[in-house]
Amino acid sequence: MHPDINKIKIIGFDADDTLWVNEPFYRDTERKFCELLKSYCSADEINRQLYKVEVNNLDLYGYGSKAFILSLIETAVIISDGKVTAAEINKILALGKEQINTKNPLLEGVPEVLQVLSSHFRLIVATKGDLLDQERKLKNSGIGGYFHHIEIMSDKTEENYMRLFNHLDIRPEEFIMVGNSLKSDIVPVIRLGGYAIHVPFHVTWQHEELLPDEIPEAHFITIENISEIVSIFGL
Amino acid sequence: MHPDINKIKIIGFDADDTLWVNEPFYRDTERKFCELLKSYCSADEINRQLYKVEVNNLDLYGYGSKAFILSLIETAVIISDGKVTAAEINKILALGKEQINTKNPLLEGVPEVLQVLSSHFRLIVATKGDLLDQERKLKNSGIGGYFHHIEIMSDKTEENYMRLFNHLDIRPEEFIMVGNSLKSDIVPVIRLGGYAIHVPFHVTWQHEELLPDEIPEAHFITIENISEIVSIFGL
Repeated sequence: MHPDINKIKIIGFDADDTLWVNEPFYRDTERKFCELLKSYCSADEINRQLYKVEVNNLDLYGYGSKAFILSLIETAVIISDGKVTAAEINKILALGKEQINTKNPLLEGVPEVLQVLSSHFRLIVATKGDLLDQERKLKNSGIGGYFHHIEIMSDKTEENYMRLFNHLDIRPEEFIMVGNSLKSDIVPVIRLGGYAIHVPFHVTWQHEELLPDEIPEAHFITIENISEIVSIFGL
Repeated sequence: MHPDINKIKIIGFDADDTLWVNEPFYRDTERKFCELLKSYCSADEINRQLYKVEVNNLDLYGYGSKAFILSLIETAVIISDGKVTAAEINKILALGKEQINTKNPLLEGVPEVLQVLSSHFRLIVATKGDLLDQERKLKNSGIGGYFHHIEIMSDKTEENYMRLFNHLDIRPEEFIMVGNSLKSDIVPVIRLGGYAIHVPFHVTWQHEELLPDEIPEAHFITIENISEIVSIFGL
């Protein structure tokens, strides 16, 4: 990747699993959910059904914890063949609340990178998911002050990124996006002519793992740790 | 109210029950919910418990349909004393999806007012609730084109309005808000020094009806129909 550094005006950061740990808490809730319902069904079958329900509900519910909890409840009804009890539903609601209340720890090196970059670029957060969830996580994180703007997107489509560029009054080639999801953070941005830095996270929701056939490699780079961004920009 | 019309740069519109019908669909779902669970409890008691659950969950779930559905399920477990069946939970999920899929009809006069005002002022939507819900309703409404900006707020607090003014690069006295909720649309805006037009709707969620002791009357006016705004601005 050789973005003309002088042209980059804004660096966008994904939030979940880019700035802070998120997906492992979903996996943890899923494990507890499978344990709770193990008398009805195997964990494999429950997870398979849950993924199906979640994907079916995406258009209607979108992303985030409330959508997840509703899909857990729907899955419980299905995999128990209509036998799930009110007490079990209540436990699923409690699992959901427990997850919402989780403090998401920052990933290693994040505050340091933001501190260096923020004195050279305008930084923004561009994240999808539930508005209230993300505002809460950002507030808890203590890094909100590094960002000029927080954009919560219902989905990270090319159309929504284009709207964001217009809103920020920049051209795509003046923007570089940092994130862990090829589907949401990398592909739409470089398709529009922007740049992207892929920082894979060790756990990714399977729906985010879809990789298209061809993406213009000159516009993106994969790094192992977010700290490497500093040297990419020669800082 | 005597706002200096020449100073107003931006008119903000609340969305639910200001631009389109919304609350009656919640009430409709509540009626069906009470009907479904009538063997456990009276409608009065169910509604009382539901309100309690919703208010308790506000900090955690925020506003919008997914928060509402989760609170319906929690209420069903409580009022049935742990006896609600999986089939009933499934029907509650279906009621929720039906409500999300509802097309919200525009209130009378809305497109005409927006057309006139949009050639003299910058119009924005400032609404709380669920991001995806509100984007969907705006898309379905066909009036999205009249607005320069859509602000979805997790809650309509003074702090969030102030952030909006900064974002729009205006002072409070250059802003007038139009909405049906005294608590969310009128009080915080005029407390900041802005102006507001109250257009009551015939159904308001009781949580929005809280009226503070004193609000500076010179900064707001109540009208019966949104069409009256045109003459307020002498257009």
